Amino acid sequence: MNLILLFKEDFIAPQRVRLSGDRKDHIQSILKAKAGDALCVGLCDGLIGRGTVVENETEVVLEVNFDQSPPDPLPLTLILALPRPPVLKRVLLCAASLGIKNMIILNFNRVEKSLWNSSALKTAAIQEQLVLGLQQAKDTRMPEVILEERFKPFVEDRLPGLIKGTLGLVAHPAGNGPCPHNIKGPVTLIIGPEGGIIDYELEKLVQLGFKPVDLGPRILKVESVLPYMIGRIGLAF
Amino acid sequence: MNLILLFKEDFIAPQRVRLSGDRKDHIQSILKAKAGDALCVGLCDGLIGRGTVVENETEVVLEVNFDQSPPDPLPLTLILALPRPPVLKRVLLCAASLGIKNMIILNFNRVEKSLWNSSALKTAAIQEQLVLGLQQAKDTRMPEVILEERFKPFVEDRLPGLIKGTLGLVAHPAGNGPCPHNIKGPVTLIIGPEGGIIDYELEKLVQLGFKPVDLGPRILKVESVLPYMIGRIGLAF
Repeated sequence: MNLILLFKEDFIAPQRVRLSGDRKDHIQSILKAKAGDALCVGLCDGLIGRGTVVENETEVVLEVNFDQSPPDPLPLTLILALPRPPVLKRVLLCAASLGIKNMIILNFNRVEKSLWNSSALKTAAIQEQLVLGLQQAKDTRMPEVILEERFKPFVEDRLPGLIKGTLGLVAHPAGNGPCPHNIKGPVTLIIGPEGGIIDYELEKLVQLGFKPVDLGPRILKVESVLPYMIGRIGLAF
Repeated sequence: MNLILLFKEDFIAPQRVRLSGDRKDHIQSILKAKAGDALCVGLCDGLIGRGTVVENETEVVLEVNFDQSPPDPLPLTLILALPRPPVLKRVLLCAASLGIKNMIILNFNRVEKSLWNSSALKTAAIQEQLVLGLQQAKDTRMPEVILEERFKPFVEDRLPGLIKGTLGLVAHPAGNGPCPHNIKGPVTLIIGPEGGIIDYELEKLVQLGFKPVDLGPRILKVESVLPYMIGRIGLAF
């Protein structure tokens, strides 16, 4: 938690917040902050600033001032095959920490259908990981996560609009060549399921202009593929 | 487990192995392999090939043939500040899956001393994560992991030899510029502790020729920094 993310409901006065739960525990047990200490805080979807500890006994109260913009969003839309719940959690946190603001969790043939019933897909569970990712990365802009449980209608109706004006990449072991380095423009990135993307799905994506890109001879975990690809295409800075 | 890693002690005949533990469970419960099925196998520090299931009842026996070389090692030495045990586990697995063969776990001022007593540093615990990483990535070459509990003697006595002939990079938020892209030659990469590298340590590293490189405005978790850096410097393929 390199930044404490604040929400409207935390405010008890125009420049004063009262914190509970994880954030309170973190300030008390990990940071061991004392009255007068200044902590990095950020307003959800707003500015970054400093929070000075006013009270830190039964409750934690901070006096807050905001003066900096959060880092720029990554110009990338991530389309991710729904992974198993523990992987989903780590990937959501990682994606949020990387500055990805638009994510679509999509069904693929090799996604086990029962995964769509996972409690990790509940709005509050997704939000929890996104908040952790923003707090890790000192960011405040909340990503949007959309769940798309049907591949074909999404690909036919929504994907043509999403790829427009962007470089469409799909990470695929039998790609048409190595993933490009250091891209400047916006990207739409697809990361398929662990079991791979089937031919029918790949054809649909290629028809829309997606370029299958190779990640080398090794098969990485999804939670490694994502930062690997972001580092490689170099959009972050 | 995209490859089943085999060890000398698994062999019950020149081309026949008997498996137990995780690998047996994986073959029976996840792969649900039947007699006659062919699985991807690799000999530790040797070739990759196919293992045909001969028996899969009370014990799992495979008939094995090896014919392919494992992927080339990554020309990179990783020097990592000792992280907390759960992070260490994930980073070891990730590093092994990325093809890193030389890792040094180093002490820094901001590494909590008690972490050096962690059971995650025992040889068997480290080996377990490396095997998982190799099996994930379809690799067979076992990485070497060295523990260095004292910063100064390591940096003064061993590091000059390690950086020689390589590009030395140290990931540092206040780096001297962005991390370079798509490097061809060998690299020595240092990833410091969560709390950061102190000035004295950074000076020692810079004196030896290490270049502090910036990773952008966001603070990433160590397990994301590593694949991010590897993707960015592009040594993998």
